[in-house]
Amino acid sequence: MAKNLTTRDEDYSKWYNELVIKADLAENSGVRGCMVIKPYGFAIWEMMQAELDRMFKETGHQNAYFPLFIPKSYFSKEASHVDGFAKECAVVTHYRLKTAENGGIVVDESAKLEEELIVRPTSETIIWDTYRKWIQSYRDLPLLINQWANVVRWEMRTRLFLRTAEFLWQEGHTAHATKEEAIAESEQMMNVYADFVENHMAVPVVKGLKTESERFAGALQTYCIEALMQDGKALQAGTSHFLGQNFAKAFDVKFANKEGKQEYVWATSWGVSTRLMGALIMTHSDDNGLVLPPKLAPDQVVIVPIYRNDEQFDAVCEVANTLIKELRSCGVRVKFDKRDTHKPGWKFNEYELKGVPLRIAIGPKDIEKGTVEMARRDTLTKEVVETTSVVARVGALLEEIQNNLFTKAVNYRTAHTTEVSSYDEFKKVLNEKGGFISAHWDGSSATEEQIKKETKATIRCIPLDTDNKQGTCIVTGKVSARKVLFAKAY
Amino acid sequence: MAKNLTTRDEDYSKWYNELVIKADLAENSGVRGCMVIKPYGFAIWEMMQAELDRMFKETGHQNAYFPLFIPKSYFSKEASHVDGFAKECAVVTHYRLKTAENGGIVVDESAKLEEELIVRPTSETIIWDTYRKWIQSYRDLPLLINQWANVVRWEMRTRLFLRTAEFLWQEGHTAHATKEEAIAESEQMMNVYADFVENHMAVPVVKGLKTESERFAGALQTYCIEALMQDGKALQAGTSHFLGQNFAKAFDVKFANKEGKQEYVWATSWGVSTRLMGALIMTHSDDNGLVLPPKLAPDQVVIVPIYRNDEQFDAVCEVANTLIKELRSCGVRVKFDKRDTHKPGWKFNEYELKGVPLRIAIGPKDIEKGTVEMARRDTLTKEVVETTSVVARVGALLEEIQNNLFTKAVNYRTAHTTEVSSYDEFKKVLNEKGGFISAHWDGSSATEEQIKKETKATIRCIPLDTDNKQGTCIVTGKVSARKVLFAKAY
Repeated sequence: MAKNLTTRDEDYSKWYNELVIKADLAENSGVRGCMVIKPYGFAIWEMMQAELDRMFKETGHQNAYFPLFIPKSYFSKEASHVDGFAKECAVVTHYRLKTAENGGIVVDESAKLEEELIVRPTSETIIWDTYRKWIQSYRDLPLLINQWANVVRWEMRTRLFLRTAEFLWQEGHTAHATKEEAIAESEQMMNVYADFVENHMAVPVVKGLKTESERFAGALQTYCIEALMQDGKALQAGTSHFLGQNFAKAFDVKFANKEGKQEYVWATSWGVSTRLMGALIMTHSDDNGLVLPPKLAPDQVVIVPIYRNDEQFDAVCEVANTLIKELRSCGVRVKFDKRDTHKPGWKFNEYELKGVPLRIAIGPKDIEKGTVEMARRDTLTKEVVETTSVVARVGALLEEIQNNLFTKAVNYRTAHTTEVSSYDEFKKVLNEKGGFISAHWDGSSATEEQIKKETKATIRCIPLDTDNKQGTCIVTGKVSARKVLFAKAY
Repeated sequence: MAKNLTTRDEDYSKWYNELVIKADLAENSGVRGCMVIKPYGFAIWEMMQAELDRMFKETGHQNAYFPLFIPKSYFSKEASHVDGFAKECAVVTHYRLKTAENGGIVVDESAKLEEELIVRPTSETIIWDTYRKWIQSYRDLPLLINQWANVVRWEMRTRLFLRTAEFLWQEGHTAHATKEEAIAESEQMMNVYADFVENHMAVPVVKGLKTESERFAGALQTYCIEALMQDGKALQAGTSHFLGQNFAKAFDVKFANKEGKQEYVWATSWGVSTRLMGALIMTHSDDNGLVLPPKLAPDQVVIVPIYRNDEQFDAVCEVANTLIKELRSCGVRVKFDKRDTHKPGWKFNEYELKGVPLRIAIGPKDIEKGTVEMARRDTLTKEVVETTSVVARVGALLEEIQNNLFTKAVNYRTAHTTEVSSYDEFKKVLNEKGGFISAHWDGSSATEEQIKKETKATIRCIPLDTDNKQGTCIVTGKVSARKVLFAKAY
């Protein structure tokens, strides 16, 4: 193709990296593992943020902001949490630089911190240290807080959006009077995530529970949503944790119940990140570039004028401007690219690469006939539409594209979910076809670990919506309570 | 008062600190100098963000995101910038912790970074390092980018919102083909800030230029807006910098002009921060608590029910719910506090403390008469309004309150801006009355420094909208081109 993109078949991983760069979504920075999110990529993230934020507020949550830095000692307070997180972190040890004798600048050793500060990898510890002051009585509960923030997890191998040292995310942290309420909150937020990912990102997900070994460090239960990418690898799109009373105990957060008795508070936390951008890109895009679902496209429609002289240009602009006004009044995000620095063909390529759902071309011949040419990004098909019908047709097509992308992704997933009944079959499917593999597992971490070592496949989740039929584990032959979903994963 | 707030007359500084805590805006965290922005405070900041973001986009800017960390060497590239910023910064030196022999966790010395990373105090360096890749030709200009981010400047003495080690802000960074265009951009953004601060925050500002010694490190010109607080001290509410070609030269950012010749790019940067929250609080609030301008109040109206039994409660709810529906359909943000855990008197106090612009009380007697009681936060006056007129009256009152707060602040500033013609008079006014002092200054940094040392007053700005009448400097008697504005400042 003219875009010079590597195709998915040639090298899926290279295709992804090139696409992210060429569609102007993000790029690597001069800081190892940290990305720059470019304006076009950030505009998509902003649309995702806006919708998620609306959903969080609708379910009673409020935003707040907690410090970027966490004193080292806070991490030691919750034993399993420190193992999971405190290790690969950015550590602030000094608070001043000074001019060296050679004129360069160096760290001022006299400005060493008494206690090192960790750049937050997640905020449970600093937030629960704060909640101790906020929660005294049952009247202060539930406390339903969300934070939009940057976090840092030192990663050796990074990939734009999928795994970066710094990433943007939201983290919800809630406190409840009862266990049941906290579990209901964890489940609710998993459902909110699934709703958003399926109905806005058009990415189908499986809802489920993580196994013990894949759980969040400090959680009693981790709910997750798992999506399948076009290369047959799974991607964890969001997690919601039931934390029990672990953090309340670690940070001594108690409340007086209605009877005046002191009890520890029950907790949840839940998050999604700029990783969702990776899921969005990898689920829908093709060898011509990005494909965006209309609900998250910064520009849903682009109008490209075709003309040879000023007179034609003016005539095209007149038609275009009328259409733009009508489309905008219907809430459609439309862009008019009338730059004279680039040819129409170049623009067609550009907007295909950038995944704009609908392209409208208007030239002198169209004006004569009272029509425009409309091109769909998802199917790459064109149609001629009467100018008077454009607004209605755009509305219908945007909805159709949104649904089509979801259906396509569901079909792909259905075709790439395989039930197996033996370990040999498991390995064969994993190597030849990929995708989700549904298989019986005896429930032990040892078996899970063995499968991971031997095949690189992990248990993505214990699905919540399957009927729990007993069977025998494909590896050990022991009794299995239900089938679980395996895959190689990002 | 029942709020137990220190009064402004007793101790202005203590009043401010107590108010921020008691109105649930923010609090200090366990991390030195870093604050927690509580949900109510954050809701106000979100409204400020939303409006500013709208204004930035309306003037053609796009959002993006750049790394939190900046390699140390980047700072050395712009000489004056390193002096201004790189010194008091959080420095990341390691990327791993490990379990110590005693079971605690310690920094893993084997995971030392080759080059230290600075937590961004401002992002000119990392952004201009990126712009080198984005800008090749005049077609790539202007580049109009904004970033919403957290930044860290190590501060020894901190105060909630006004001066904290970590704070939230936006930073605009633009690149232009010509000097004139870059200057116009700096001026435009100063005007956007002034528009926002005056018309949304209801805080009057003086627009002006910083003197050389008060300029941003690396700028050729700093435009600013200065506000006056109720204790007679000035607060810099926003700055916009014309950076010339300094950063383009430091990071080698050139473009091919229309003739194909290579030229260095011209730059601006501009920012406002959570410090604006401090300005908002200190300009309008009184001894009863926070006073919010309606445009930035998370709740513009609160309805408090008065009742003695369930029957009365149901009757009140019926009236209230009808009003709420009508008010919301007019875009009014209204809250109905029907908690039975607190008495009406407690609620009245609470919403006065939190600065809700209008309070509506509805009781059985009101229902009989077909009226409600409406109380204004700004004037603390009450009026009886017929239920059928509530929606219209609320609309009118919210507008009136917004205007009244601005007028009050303008009047305060007018009364506290004094023209002086001698240094003795200057010192007398500064000590006895405070506020802005307009005086002739000979334009030298030496004189400016002398005045600062002797009186603690600084030149807040060289106002842009005054007629430039010559005179003689109040200190040296030398020729002065114009009067400038002095004050003690936050």
